[in-house]
Amino acid sequence: MSEEPRSPEHAPIGPPDAKVYPRFSGPDTFARLPRLDDVPGSADVALLGVPFDAGTSYRPGARFGPAGIRAGSKLLRPYHPELAVSPWLSQQVVDAGDVGANPFDIAEAVGQIEAAARSVLERAERLIALGGDHTIALPLLRVTKERHGPVALVHFDAHPDTWDTYFGAPFTHGTPFRRAVEEGLLAPGRGAHVGLRGPLYAQRDLDDDRALGFSAITTAHIARVGTDEVVDRIRQRVGNLPVYLSIDVDVLDPAHAPGTGTPEPGGLTTRELQTIVRGLVGLDVVGADVVEVAPAYDHAELTSLAAANMAYEILGLLARR
Amino acid sequence: MSEEPRSPEHAPIGPPDAKVYPRFSGPDTFARLPRLDDVPGSADVALLGVPFDAGTSYRPGARFGPAGIRAGSKLLRPYHPELAVSPWLSQQVVDAGDVGANPFDIAEAVGQIEAAARSVLERAERLIALGGDHTIALPLLRVTKERHGPVALVHFDAHPDTWDTYFGAPFTHGTPFRRAVEEGLLAPGRGAHVGLRGPLYAQRDLDDDRALGFSAITTAHIARVGTDEVVDRIRQRVGNLPVYLSIDVDVLDPAHAPGTGTPEPGGLTTRELQTIVRGLVGLDVVGADVVEVAPAYDHAELTSLAAANMAYEILGLLARR
Amino acid sequence: MSEEPRSPEHAPIGPPDAKVYPRFSGPDTFARLPRLDDVPGSADVALLGVPFDAGTSYRPGARFGPAGIRAGSKLLRPYHPELAVSPWLSQQVVDAGDVGANPFDIAEAVGQIEAAARSVLERAERLIALGGDHTIALPLLRVTKERHGPVALVHFDAHPDTWDTYFGAPFTHGTPFRRAVEEGLLAPGRGAHVGLRGPLYAQRDLDDDRALGFSAITTAHIARVGTDEVVDRIRQRVGNLPVYLSIDVDVLDPAHAPGTGTPEPGGLTTRELQTIVRGLVGLDVVGADVVEVAPAYDHAELTSLAAANMAYEILGLLARR
Amino acid sequence: MSEEPRSPEHAPIGPPDAKVYPRFSGPDTFARLPRLDDVPGSADVALLGVPFDAGTSYRPGARFGPAGIRAGSKLLRPYHPELAVSPWLSQQVVDAGDVGANPFDIAEAVGQIEAAARSVLERAERLIALGGDHTIALPLLRVTKERHGPVALVHFDAHPDTWDTYFGAPFTHGTPFRRAVEEGLLAPGRGAHVGLRGPLYAQRDLDDDRALGFSAITTAHIARVGTDEVVDRIRQRVGNLPVYLSIDVDVLDPAHAPGTGTPEPGGLTTRELQTIVRGLVGLDVVGADVVEVAPAYDHAELTSLAAANMAYEILGLLARR
Amino acid sequence: MSEEPRSPEHAPIGPPDAKVYPRFSGPDTFARLPRLDDVPGSADVALLGVPFDAGTSYRPGARFGPAGIRAGSKLLRPYHPELAVSPWLSQQVVDAGDVGANPFDIAEAVGQIEAAARSVLERAERLIALGGDHTIALPLLRVTKERHGPVALVHFDAHPDTWDTYFGAPFTHGTPFRRAVEEGLLAPGRGAHVGLRGPLYAQRDLDDDRALGFSAITTAHIARVGTDEVVDRIRQRVGNLPVYLSIDVDVLDPAHAPGTGTPEPGGLTTRELQTIVRGLVGLDVVGADVVEVAPAYDHAELTSLAAANMAYEILGLLARR
Amino acid sequence: MSEEPRSPEHAPIGPPDAKVYPRFSGPDTFARLPRLDDVPGSADVALLGVPFDAGTSYRPGARFGPAGIRAGSKLLRPYHPELAVSPWLSQQVVDAGDVGANPFDIAEAVGQIEAAARSVLERAERLIALGGDHTIALPLLRVTKERHGPVALVHFDAHPDTWDTYFGAPFTHGTPFRRAVEEGLLAPGRGAHVGLRGPLYAQRDLDDDRALGFSAITTAHIARVGTDEVVDRIRQRVGNLPVYLSIDVDVLDPAHAPGTGTPEPGGLTTRELQTIVRGLVGLDVVGADVVEVAPAYDHAELTSLAAANMAYEILGLLARR
Repeated sequence: MSEEPRSPEHAPIGPPDAKVYPRFSGPDTFARLPRLDDVPGSADVALLGVPFDAGTSYRPGARFGPAGIRAGSKLLRPYHPELAVSPWLSQQVVDAGDVGANPFDIAEAVGQIEAAARSVLERAERLIALGGDHTIALPLLRVTKERHGPVALVHFDAHPDTWDTYFGAPFTHGTPFRRAVEEGLLAPGRGAHVGLRGPLYAQRDLDDDRALGFSAITTAHIARVGTDEVVDRIRQRVGNLPVYLSIDVDVLDPAHAPGTGTPEPGGLTTRELQTIVRGLVGLDVVGADVVEVAPAYDHAELTSLAAANMAYEILGLLARR
Repeated sequence: MSEEPRSPEHAPIGPPDAKVYPRFSGPDTFARLPRLDDVPGSADVALLGVPFDAGTSYRPGARFGPAGIRAGSKLLRPYHPELAVSPWLSQQVVDAGDVGANPFDIAEAVGQIEAAARSVLERAERLIALGGDHTIALPLLRVTKERHGPVALVHFDAHPDTWDTYFGAPFTHGTPFRRAVEEGLLAPGRGAHVGLRGPLYAQRDLDDDRALGFSAITTAHIARVGTDEVVDRIRQRVGNLPVYLSIDVDVLDPAHAPGTGTPEPGGLTTRELQTIVRGLVGLDVVGADVVEVAPAYDHAELTSLAAANMAYEILGLLARR
Repeated sequence: MSEEPRSPEHAPIGPPDAKVYPRFSGPDTFARLPRLDDVPGSADVALLGVPFDAGTSYRPGARFGPAGIRAGSKLLRPYHPELAVSPWLSQQVVDAGDVGANPFDIAEAVGQIEAAARSVLERAERLIALGGDHTIALPLLRVTKERHGPVALVHFDAHPDTWDTYFGAPFTHGTPFRRAVEEGLLAPGRGAHVGLRGPLYAQRDLDDDRALGFSAITTAHIARVGTDEVVDRIRQRVGNLPVYLSIDVDVLDPAHAPGTGTPEPGGLTTRELQTIVRGLVGLDVVGADVVEVAPAYDHAELTSLAAANMAYEILGLLARR
Repeated sequence: MSEEPRSPEHAPIGPPDAKVYPRFSGPDTFARLPRLDDVPGSADVALLGVPFDAGTSYRPGARFGPAGIRAGSKLLRPYHPELAVSPWLSQQVVDAGDVGANPFDIAEAVGQIEAAARSVLERAERLIALGGDHTIALPLLRVTKERHGPVALVHFDAHPDTWDTYFGAPFTHGTPFRRAVEEGLLAPGRGAHVGLRGPLYAQRDLDDDRALGFSAITTAHIARVGTDEVVDRIRQRVGNLPVYLSIDVDVLDPAHAPGTGTPEPGGLTTRELQTIVRGLVGLDVVGADVVEVAPAYDHAELTSLAAANMAYEILGLLARR
Repeated sequence: MSEEPRSPEHAPIGPPDAKVYPRFSGPDTFARLPRLDDVPGSADVALLGVPFDAGTSYRPGARFGPAGIRAGSKLLRPYHPELAVSPWLSQQVVDAGDVGANPFDIAEAVGQIEAAARSVLERAERLIALGGDHTIALPLLRVTKERHGPVALVHFDAHPDTWDTYFGAPFTHGTPFRRAVEEGLLAPGRGAHVGLRGPLYAQRDLDDDRALGFSAITTAHIARVGTDEVVDRIRQRVGNLPVYLSIDVDVLDPAHAPGTGTPEPGGLTTRELQTIVRGLVGLDVVGADVVEVAPAYDHAELTSLAAANMAYEILGLLARR
Repeated sequence: MSEEPRSPEHAPIGPPDAKVYPRFSGPDTFARLPRLDDVPGSADVALLGVPFDAGTSYRPGARFGPAGIRAGSKLLRPYHPELAVSPWLSQQVVDAGDVGANPFDIAEAVGQIEAAARSVLERAERLIALGGDHTIALPLLRVTKERHGPVALVHFDAHPDTWDTYFGAPFTHGTPFRRAVEEGLLAPGRGAHVGLRGPLYAQRDLDDDRALGFSAITTAHIARVGTDEVVDRIRQRVGNLPVYLSIDVDVLDPAHAPGTGTPEPGGLTTRELQTIVRGLVGLDVVGADVVEVAPAYDHAELTSLAAANMAYEILGLLARR
C-alpha cells in the first residue's frame, strides 16, 4: 500500500515521534520533516522556502511567508484519508531550507531563485516552493521547463497575473505568467486560472489573457456549477501533460486567508480548494508553489494553516503518482 | 459600450494613474476618486461618509466606518467583469467627504445627515452613504423620498431593524425602518429584508415586521433555495419601483465581517452577497447605504474590504442603468 | 405556546431587562441568566463552566473558554425563530458557575469535574458544559450514564478523539471517546462523529474508530450530500436513544472559529452547523458540551460568538422536548 | 495588624480560595470578590461598574470598560506589600455590579448613574466607580458632595477635562470638572490635575482651568522633579480635606494603556502612577473612579490590568485609613 | 504672540472646526490641515507623504506609513503648551499629499522623491517628510543641500544607518547617511545620532561612523546623563548651522513604537524623545523627516500616534523660529 | 581581542552571511546559529529550547516560547558594543534544539528536562535554556549543581516563585526556587530576586522567602535608587560564587512584555533590565534561563524580541568571562 515505506531498509526519514516531541516543539522545518542535508542520497520531494516579496504591489510581507507556512504545518499528520496516502511515508520528503534572494534587486533575485531551484532539483525529484510573492513562479517555471518541457499550468488565484508590467518592471507578482508564455515555458492553450474574481483594469485584461492561452474559471462560476465540474474542466484542459500547480492563497476568500498581499472578497473556502486540488489526483504534477502568505496580516495562523495544508495536498498528489 | 467615457470631452475624472501612484499612496478618498469639489459641474454618483455611531446598541465604533471603507477601497480597479461595466469611467463618481454629525445628540445628528445628503444631492444625481451605524438610513430615506417618492427597500441585514424604541429612543440603529414606514418613506408592501437570522425578542417581532409591510428572507432559507431564487423573489417584490438599497455588513457572517456592532453567526459569504446584489442589475437604484463597519473590531481590513466591494457593486448597478 | 412561561406563578427567572441594562452591562453569566443559587427550587437546565485545558496537545488556553463563551453570549435574545421556541422563557435555565479543577493534575481534575457535574445535576435536570478542552467530555459522560444509561453520542469535531493515549496519558483532549467506550458509557454502535477532516496518523485510526462503534461523517461528505442528508443519517444512527451532544468548536472552519486548540482547514460554516444541530429537534438530548474555545487565539469574539450560539441551539432543542 | 480581619466573627467575605478555584475561573466580579447582595449588612467599599461611553469624543468603547477591568483584576492577590495592607481582608469589599445607563441619552444616563451611586452608598461606606468614560465623574461627585461636602479633587489624566461644551453638549468626557466647579461640588482651589500633556486648543484652556481653581502638573514636570515632589505638591494642595480620586487611564502612556479613547504620547509609566497614588496614603479618600478603559483597543489586557491595579491601589489607600 | 495669525487678512487656513466635524471625520490630511492645492500662494510648511519601503531589510510595510501617520494625527489640537506656540495658526501648514514612487526600482524611486520634494519646495518654505523607510532621507537631503548648503544632521534612530551597501545596493534604509556624506550633503563633523543601541556587525561600524563625522549618543548614555545633557550636546554639535532633523521611530522602544521595521529593545520613551526634540527650539531646522512607521505591526495606532506627535513637535520648532 | 575567533583554524561557526541570506530567511535556530549537531567537537555555549508550560497557573502558552524567542532573535548582529564583545565569534555558540517534554505529566517532564540538559552539557560547556514556564528552572538547577555545586541565584522576576505548592503540586512555575533550596541546589543566603512587585498572598510570603535565604529587590526600590546601586547590591550578594541567572520576562513591565503568563504592571523597562544584566559582567555565570514567553499574548514580537535580547546579553556575559 502506498502509505507503507518503499522497503524497510529504505524507509523514508520522517518527522520526530510526536509522542516524544510534542508538535509544538522540535525542528521548525515543514511538518518537522528532515532537512535536505539530513537524508542520505536524493529525495523524492523537496520543499523550498523562497522568502522574497519585492515584487509585491500592495501589502508586502510575503518574505515571512516560508516561516509562516512552516509554523502552520506543525499539526499535519502522516496519513491523508481522502487520498488514502501517507505523503511522507511513501516517499522521501525534505525541507531544503530557504533561497537567499536579494531583497533590493528583483532581477537578481529571480536569477538566484532559479539557480537555487535548479540546485535543489539535482538532489530531489520534485520541488514545491513556499513563497514569497508570485514573482517567484517565473524562475520556478524556467527550471521546470528545463526538465519537463513546456507544462500545463493550473493556477489558483484571484487574479490572472498576466499583466505586462508595473511601473515598467517586467518581474512582479502580477506578471509572471505573461513572462512565462513569452519565454515558452507553458504548453500553449493548456493553462487555466481557477478562482478569478474582483475588478480588473479593463475588458482587455480578459481578452489579453485569453490570447495568451489561458482559460479563466471564476469563483462566481464555481459557485454555480460546483467543484466537480471545475475539476473536470481543469482535467480536460490539462490532458496528460506534465502540470505545474501554482496556488496563490488569495484564491481563498479573505475570511479564510486574511494574511495576503492583495485580498479579494468572494473567494473560495478552504474546503472548496481542497476538493478541487484533490480532484487532480493522477495528474503528473512536476512542480508547484504555494505563495503570497503575508503573516503580518494573518490572524491565529489562519492563512499559514491553509497554505501548509495546500502544500500537504500537493504532497498527497505526488505520493499518489 | 458602457465602460467607455460618455464623450471624450466629458470623460469622467477618475483616480490617479496606478502606474504612477501605487495603490497604497495618493488621495484617501473612496477608490482614490476625485472629491466632489474637484470636478466641474455635477456628478453622477457621490459617496458620502457618515461617521456617526451614537445609535449603536452594542459594540460602538462605526464612527470610524467611513475611514475604514475608504482604506478598504484602494484595491478596487476600474472594470467590473461580472457586470461588464466600468463604474467610474462611464459615469462621474466622486467622494463628497464626511457629514459633520453631532456625536452627542442623535436627533440633531439625524437632522444634520438629512441636510448634508440633501445638499450633496444638489450636486450629484445619486448618493451612496458610507456609515456609520444604521440610524443613518432614516434621514437618507427622507431625502430619497423627497426626490423619488416612496421607494421599495431592499435591505441586507441580520436584523430587521424595525423595532420601536430602545431605552425610549426613537432613532437608533435598530429602528430606522419602522420610522421610515411611519413617515411614509417606503412604498407599502414592497420592502424586503435579506439575510435575517439569529435570536429575536419574540414571535411578535416577526409579526410586527410583516404588518409593517416587509418580507423577510432568512439565511437558512437562502442556504436552502440558493441565490438565484432569492434574486427572483426580491425582484418580484420590488417590481419597477425606485429602489433604496441598504447593506448592513452584519448580513455577512462574522467570519467575513468581524468588524461590526452586532455580529451574528450563520450569515452570508461575501460571494453570496455579491451574487445577490449583482442579480439586481437593471433595477432603478435611487439611493443606497453600506453601514455598520466598526474597524476597531476588524482584522486585516476584512470588513472594510467587504464593505468597499459592496459599494463598488452598487456603483456597478448604477453604471448599468 | 412553548415560548410562554409554564404558568404565571412559576415563570422562569430570566436575564435583566435589556431596556434597562444594556447588553454590554449586567451580570456576566451566560446570556445574563440567573445563577443557580439565585433561583428557588431546581432548574430545568444548568450551564456549567469547566475551565480546564491541561489535556490540550497543541495550543492551550481553553481554560479561558467559559469566560469567552459567556462574553460571546450577551447578544442572545429570548426567541429562537427557526425552532419557534423561547429557550429560557419556557424552562428555567441557570448558570451554575465554574468547576474548580486542578490545572496540574489531569486525573484529579477529571474527578473534580465529575463530582461537580453530579452535584449540579442534583439541582438541575439537564447540564450543558462550557469547556475547557475535550478531556472534560469523559467525566460528563460518566455522570450522564449514571442517570440515563449508555447514550448515543452525536459528536461534532474535526477529529475523532478516539486515540488511545498521548505520552502515556489516558485522559487528554484526543482520547475521551475511546475511554467512554471502554467504560461502557456509550450505547454500542450508536455514536457518530460529524465534521471529521484533516490528516490522521494512519488508516488504522479510522479502522479503530469504526471498531469502537463510531460512524464518521466528513466535511467533504457533507459538502457533497448536503446538511439534510447528514441530519437523516445522524437521526437513523441515534434512533430514540437518549443523546449526548458534544460540540468541539474546531468542527467549524478556522475562518469561523480561529480561537481553538487544533484548528483544521476545510470545516463547516456556522450556518451549516446550526442547520444540522437544529435538525436534531425532537431527540432526547440528555447532556451536552461545547468545548475547545481558546480566546487567546480568537478575534473579535468570532469563536466565542459561535460557541455561545451553539449552546443557544442546544437550549432550543431542550426547550422543544 | 491591618491585614487581619476585624474580628473572627466579622471576618470580611473574600474571593473563593485560589487553591480550589484557579484564578482563571470562578465569579467574574472584581478580583472575584463577593457581590453586594452576597454579604450580610453593609460593606466598607463597593466597586460599581458604569458601562457608559456616550460622552466619548474620539474612540468609543469604554462601555465595555467595567467588564475589561474585572477581567484584568483576576491576578490580584490579597496582600499589598508596599502599603503593608490586605485590601479585602481588613475591610469588606464588594462588587455592586453595573449601573443601567441609557446609552442614547447622556442627560438621562447621568441621572441614572447618580441615582445608582446614591443607592449603593446606602449599603456601602465608600464607592469606587469603574468606567465608562469620564462623563461619569460628574454624577459621582454630586453624590460625594451630598455626603462629604465639597471635596478636593486629585485627578490623574492627560487632559484637564474642564472644557465647556462639545457640540453644545454640557455633559461629555471632556467637561465633567467644569460642571463640578459650577455646581459647587469641589472645594475651591484644592483641585489638581496630574499627568497633563499634549496639545490644547489655546493658551486660554490653561488660563480657564486655573481660573476654575485647578493646579496642573504635567508629565514633563514630573519627569523633571520626580514622583516624590509631585506627591508633596498634591498633599499640600489637598491638605486634610476629603479627597475624590479620579484616574483616567490615559494618564498612562499609550504604551502602558493603549486601550483608551484619547491616547496621548508622553505619559506616565504604570510604575510612576503606582508610586504617586501610594504616596497619597493617609488622605481621606471618600470617593474614586477609574475610567476610560476601552477594551477594543487594548492588547493582552495591558490597559485592563493597569486599571484593575489602580483600583487595587485605591482599595489599599482605603484599607489604610 | 506666536500663536496668533500673522495678520487678519492673511490668517493661515487651518483644519475644519472640530465642533462641527468631529475629529474622527473630515479630510484625511495630516491633522486635517488643508491640502497644498487648497491654499492660495505659498505655504510655510508642507508635509509630504513618501510611501516607499523597498529599501527595508527586515519587516516591510512602511509604504503604509504616511497613511498611518495621518490617521494618528487626528487628535492633534492647535496649541502646543510646552513650546507655547500654535503650530498651524502662526504659519501656513499644508499637506502636500504623497510622492508617487516606483516600488520596484529603488534608484528610480530615489529620483522621484527628490523631484517631488524639489517641486513641493517651490511652493512651500519648509518640508517635513512622512515616510516611508529611511532610504528616503537621501533624496530629501539632496534637495535640502541645494537650498541651504551642507547641513548639520540630528538623527534619532536605534541604528547609525551609515552602512555601506546591503546585497550590493547603495540605496537602502541602512545606508542613507553614508551616501549623504559621500555626496557632501552634510556639514563635516556636525552630525549626531541620538538613541543608538543594540548589536552591530563589528566595532568597525562605530569606527567607520566616527570617521564619517558622526557623534553617537546611545540610549544607555541618555539613561545615565539625562535628557538635558543630551540636548546640550546636540546643540553644541550643531552650533548655528542649518539643521536637518531625521526621526526614525525605532529610536523609541518597541513598547512605544511596535510598528516599525527593525525594532530594538532598550529605546527611548515618547516622553524622553519629546523632551529632547523640544530642547532643540531655536535651531534653524530647514528640513525633517519622520520615518519607518509600519502600520501592519502597530497596535491601536501606538506608533502612528507617536510619529504624528513627532511631526507636531517639529511643526512647533518651525513655528518658534 | 575577545571578538576575534580563538584561532583561524578553530574559528567558531556562525550564522549564514546576512548579505546572502537576509535576516528574514535561513535556519530558524537562535540567531540563525548552527545546530549542536552541525559543529565538530564540543560547543562553548548551547541554547536549549524547553517548550513546556504545564506548570502555568494563569495564561498558558509558554510551550510556544522557544519558537517565539528564536523568531525574535533574527535581528541580532554579532557585535555587542556595550560589552565590547562578539558573543558568537569569540566562542562557539549553538542551538541544541528542543527538549521533548511530556505536556501531560509535570513530574515526568521535569525529569526529561533534567536528562536533556545533562546530555547537552556533555557536548557544551554552558547552557542557556529558553522556556517554557518557570517550572523548568528546577531541573536546570539540579544539573547545574552537579557540575558547579550550589550556586548563587540571580533571579529577575515580578514574583519570588518560592511558594510551596499550588493545588498540591510541588512542581509549578510558582515554586521552583523553594524546591531548589530544599534540594540544596543554591548557596545559602546568596540568592536575589530582582524586580519583585505586585500583590502577594500575605506578609508571610516575604518572611518565608527571606527565611529561604533570598534577598528581594523591588521595582519600587529600583526606581528610587537606580540601576547602578542595584548592580552593586547583586554583586555583593553573589560575591565570587558561580551564578545561575534566571530571567522571567514578566520582570519587564507588561508594556514591554505583554506576552507572558502572569503580567504585573509596574515593571522594568527593557533598558533598565539590559543595564542591570550588563552590570553583572565578570561574574561566573554557569547557567541561565529566559522563561515565560507566551507568544499568543504577544504583539509584534515585543516579548520575543526582549527575551531574545536577554539571551544575547547572557551570551555577552559568557563571552566576556
